[in-house]
Amino acid sequence: MKKVAILGATGLVGQRFIQLLQNHPYFEIVALCASDNSAGLKYAQAARWKLDIPIPSKIAEMVVRPCKPDIDCDYVFSALPSDVAGPIEDEFRKAGYTIFSNAASHRLDEDVPLVVPEVNLDHLELVKHQKGPGKLVTNPNCSTIGLVMALKPIMDNFGIESVTVVTMQAISGAGYPGVASLDILDNVIPFIKNEEEKMMIEPKKILGKVVENKIEYAKFDIVAQCNRVPVQDGHLLSVFVETSLKASTEKIIKAFEEFNPIKHMNLPTAPEKPLIYLEGVDVPQPKLHRNLGNGMSVSVGRIVQINERKFRFLALVHNTIRGAAGCAILNAEAYKHLYE
Amino acid sequence: MKKVAILGATGLVGQRFIQLLQNHPYFEIVALCASDNSAGLKYAQAARWKLDIPIPSKIAEMVVRPCKPDIDCDYVFSALPSDVAGPIEDEFRKAGYTIFSNAASHRLDEDVPLVVPEVNLDHLELVKHQKGPGKLVTNPNCSTIGLVMALKPIMDNFGIESVTVVTMQAISGAGYPGVASLDILDNVIPFIKNEEEKMMIEPKKILGKVVENKIEYAKFDIVAQCNRVPVQDGHLLSVFVETSLKASTEKIIKAFEEFNPIKHMNLPTAPEKPLIYLEGVDVPQPKLHRNLGNGMSVSVGRIVQINERKFRFLALVHNTIRGAAGCAILNAEAYKHLYE
Amino acid sequence: MKKVAILGATGLVGQRFIQLLQNHPYFEIVALCASDNSAGLKYAQAARWKLDIPIPSKIAEMVVRPCKPDIDCDYVFSALPSDVAGPIEDEFRKAGYTIFSNAASHRLDEDVPLVVPEVNLDHLELVKHQKGPGKLVTNPNCSTIGLVMALKPIMDNFGIESVTVVTMQAISGAGYPGVASLDILDNVIPFIKNEEEKMMIEPKKILGKVVENKIEYAKFDIVAQCNRVPVQDGHLLSVFVETSLKASTEKIIKAFEEFNPIKHMNLPTAPEKPLIYLEGVDVPQPKLHRNLGNGMSVSVGRIVQINERKFRFLALVHNTIRGAAGCAILNAEAYKHLYE
Amino acid sequence: MKKVAILGATGLVGQRFIQLLQNHPYFEIVALCASDNSAGLKYAQAARWKLDIPIPSKIAEMVVRPCKPDIDCDYVFSALPSDVAGPIEDEFRKAGYTIFSNAASHRLDEDVPLVVPEVNLDHLELVKHQKGPGKLVTNPNCSTIGLVMALKPIMDNFGIESVTVVTMQAISGAGYPGVASLDILDNVIPFIKNEEEKMMIEPKKILGKVVENKIEYAKFDIVAQCNRVPVQDGHLLSVFVETSLKASTEKIIKAFEEFNPIKHMNLPTAPEKPLIYLEGVDVPQPKLHRNLGNGMSVSVGRIVQINERKFRFLALVHNTIRGAAGCAILNAEAYKHLYE
Repeated sequence: MKKVAILGATGLVGQRFIQLLQNHPYFEIVALCASDNSAGLKYAQAARWKLDIPIPSKIAEMVVRPCKPDIDCDYVFSALPSDVAGPIEDEFRKAGYTIFSNAASHRLDEDVPLVVPEVNLDHLELVKHQKGPGKLVTNPNCSTIGLVMALKPIMDNFGIESVTVVTMQAISGAGYPGVASLDILDNVIPFIKNEEEKMMIEPKKILGKVVENKIEYAKFDIVAQCNRVPVQDGHLLSVFVETSLKASTEKIIKAFEEFNPIKHMNLPTAPEKPLIYLEGVDVPQPKLHRNLGNGMSVSVGRIVQINERKFRFLALVHNTIRGAAGCAILNAEAYKHLYE
Repeated sequence: MKKVAILGATGLVGQRFIQLLQNHPYFEIVALCASDNSAGLKYAQAARWKLDIPIPSKIAEMVVRPCKPDIDCDYVFSALPSDVAGPIEDEFRKAGYTIFSNAASHRLDEDVPLVVPEVNLDHLELVKHQKGPGKLVTNPNCSTIGLVMALKPIMDNFGIESVTVVTMQAISGAGYPGVASLDILDNVIPFIKNEEEKMMIEPKKILGKVVENKIEYAKFDIVAQCNRVPVQDGHLLSVFVETSLKASTEKIIKAFEEFNPIKHMNLPTAPEKPLIYLEGVDVPQPKLHRNLGNGMSVSVGRIVQINERKFRFLALVHNTIRGAAGCAILNAEAYKHLYE
Repeated sequence: MKKVAILGATGLVGQRFIQLLQNHPYFEIVALCASDNSAGLKYAQAARWKLDIPIPSKIAEMVVRPCKPDIDCDYVFSALPSDVAGPIEDEFRKAGYTIFSNAASHRLDEDVPLVVPEVNLDHLELVKHQKGPGKLVTNPNCSTIGLVMALKPIMDNFGIESVTVVTMQAISGAGYPGVASLDILDNVIPFIKNEEEKMMIEPKKILGKVVENKIEYAKFDIVAQCNRVPVQDGHLLSVFVETSLKASTEKIIKAFEEFNPIKHMNLPTAPEKPLIYLEGVDVPQPKLHRNLGNGMSVSVGRIVQINERKFRFLALVHNTIRGAAGCAILNAEAYKHLYE
Repeated sequence: MKKVAILGATGLVGQRFIQLLQNHPYFEIVALCASDNSAGLKYAQAARWKLDIPIPSKIAEMVVRPCKPDIDCDYVFSALPSDVAGPIEDEFRKAGYTIFSNAASHRLDEDVPLVVPEVNLDHLELVKHQKGPGKLVTNPNCSTIGLVMALKPIMDNFGIESVTVVTMQAISGAGYPGVASLDILDNVIPFIKNEEEKMMIEPKKILGKVVENKIEYAKFDIVAQCNRVPVQDGHLLSVFVETSLKASTEKIIKAFEEFNPIKHMNLPTAPEKPLIYLEGVDVPQPKLHRNLGNGMSVSVGRIVQINERKFRFLALVHNTIRGAAGCAILNAEAYKHLYE
């Protein structure tokens, strides 16, 4: 068993970490850390629990700690909001901890891998060259995770020249309290702060190559426009992609279905199928498909050929599971598998 | 005063016709027609009224008639569902009526103009060459109306090579009962039957030219992907456009703002500004902006330059006002202005 | 293993039966019956599946049968809509089947028990006196189930003089397509057809006594007012109750917490706690608590004493699990336990 | 013309004041006051405008002032949040201003009238006995306003012994940002802070009598249970009332319909009908009826007789118009009519 701590344990992503780590075969939560307001309180008092399962009773009784690097643990998961994550993660790294972070702060750092195990497991090796004593592995932005998982088999088989993506993102992506109900009930907000920027750079790093211990970014064009919609969980992406080689919908569906490069590793949080291509004209839908593969599968649907090398399709990612806590846990499982 | 009849008067679009024709300076509703189930009933009994204003008392008492061409009136407005509109409109046309239709059935007929007055008023002249005795003018699909109003000033100033559009459409676009609440609460449905097809052909006709009494379709590429979102009214469009000439966001905004080619006609239902460019990063929003210009203005916002000739922006159209009943009424006003 | 058939298997409640009977220790689905439109199709084609888990693969492939009493099975579960359930259930009963029905048609029949196992298990014995060859056991209306589960420990300990209840009910209670999104988005509908009538009579039967093989209805007054709210699942009840004896909030909470008269039976679908009293001022909430006890527990909260013998509290019941399919299955489990 | 200032002008209720005072025949907005964060900014910059009409252009350009009693105006409207209203209103009162407040702070003060003009106009005379130099008139809590307007004609005609009310309240009642979307999408929250307390005392003051320059509270029992629902505007009340005298639904409907004791005053903001009794089983509904009488009418519907002296019915009030800004303005109009 590995002892793990969660930074930002009281927030929405923190709650997902707790949910996903319940009954984990080799990670055991030993510390819940949060802001000074919460530190010292029992978790049940400190957190505004928003999941529809009860707080696990052992967790409920744990006393929340401040985010200080004085914890006896093997791995640290960071669910901290991006505005505070940077320095706290630095502190833990300096103190020698191995951190798997969902925060944006260090995603683009040159020596920090930005990983979705099914997509760019090899980027993990960047950690070998990180200046010690600690280690930092990050996972991408929630929408980006859904996007790159769908793009990866296309890139591998046909190459990618350009991508245009329009997102329809769930309210849970903004944390709690996050989006005011007055702003989103009966409405769409065509803007999410910093989201388009992330979606227009992170995929190039993730789909890039490791060259001499650095990431050479992928070269395709990418444009993103991000919208908030009145949906609880699940980011839906309308994707337009131009391939380098000729392709067909059949071939791309086949590539989606066969995609599972980490199957042999048998990681406990890995879904049976990372990509599920759904038959039907009106799929995927957040309400129906966000929980496929326990929220770890990305659903794709309705791929349409526009011309010889242009296609469009839909992709859906559970933003707080695969798009956040679940991806960080999968990164930790892969790291343990490879390096320990 | 012109006497007008409304076909499909009990449906959602029919209700908007009634609302918009209340106190109209020269159109007076003399007949409300609907299916045989409704015929013979008082309108207040026949219609499931869904607007947040009461049924006008005179209308409430009118007895609904069947959709038969035996009405003493000058103009006929058709709010019929597309699956029944075709033959009924044919019957009225054969009987010599002048019809302004919101239905899709005849939009692409060679001799039928598909008109948004601000965009292609000149197409109206097709009616002169329609084989008598009746006349038929159609207005486009709701989303298409929002799109072509925003594209027109771009086309006139910079030319258009290609358009990609992703829509987030309101539930009222599906009529009543339309979308089941179980399907759309906490959800997005990435499919609307026949909608993408309409959006990928209608703009080419509308933005085409009259050449020898026929429409020569515009030649740009267009791809559309349509989604239903849990919003009452207002279709939001995320638009990506490639221009023929170099342009800039400033120039396009200026073109949006100056756009009002029918201002001199002073049509009663025409908004002061057909296009309203909103400042701000998170606009337009359905809930806040759908009623601008009494629901007849299209709001545009957040135009961003992608490269020398590529831009993206958002557009919002009130789907049952500008996108349906309001556009048909404006067509009738323009027709009267020009030909009577 | 008992072989079971589901009547009305394609509807929302039918889908919940399928979900809850997956991996059941002694019920195995052998037949899925539905209307003639569906009969002959594979289940995956016939049903518009609305749950967020995939259709179990074995079920997906089963061919839907018509609702005819020619099935080789031990028990029949009826998830039929009330407008067709009556005669179909009669036919099955005449053919000798043992039916556990969620439909309203026969709930008030003199020889038919209306049962929630935790509340009035003893009513089950009515079946012994049913004229053969078949048997029929019904479960109450969804809101009623939540109500009587909360009232039972109060009645047993303090007696009940009168009850006033206002409901806020989920859209899934109306089946599919059910409530139109135009009617319920941003709205409350203060009416549900036949619901108030059911809530004002069924509790008196359920909380009544078996006297000489008949039910002597309980005598308290009851008033119900029912509302539909934009919630997916979970009926929330605001309950006002006048007791016969003096009581206190502490005593009532104790009665809630200790309530589990069928614990010794160890029925597989029975929740560990039939009633869960939640601490806090703003509970229970449909989104957070409807799935407690796998949807089989009723949550109660915020009991307040109004005067010596008047109290108010909130209760929440998952309407398609405990309030429908789950209760019918529990009835069948109890029946098997007692009589077979 | 009277010059008016608005305290708390940037909030949701402040915005409604601005909307309702546009084009007012004798009130002219001369000052917009808000917190120190907003003071000094143009209104368009300071306010997060949430209405679906644009900010009136004159208002947009006005510079927001701090809430200091140095304004040259005749009347002051207070839309301040209750947690800051008390001392600020005191300061204005000491400085001699005449204040019409929507805030809760002073509603129950012995010398302060709590007025809905149609219900207890005579209470206004309390101001004559207020120790100078300023004057303070308050209007009730939003839900209470709907309740007392419906109760008043019942009380006058049949007397009232007891009232039980369950509310389903809109999110706009919590201000902005107010209710988090994560808390209310697909949910009902059965608690609104301090709301039940207000509803259980304010009606007794409002329906009380002026006796020797003081209010003698009405004596009926009242119990309230308040819920938040995912509705934009409009509080729906499920009301159970026990009358002192025998009554009938017909007589109560007649009393509702004839209710308009201030008709002769012709106040500009007064609706033609303060109470509108709607025919039909499923009314009133927030989405359809909240705007009746420009949001100033209370809709009532579906009155049902329970026994000789018990009735239940539904009432709907637009919470930010009649339930807040509109009532304060009507109070000011009545005050001016009577005393100036």
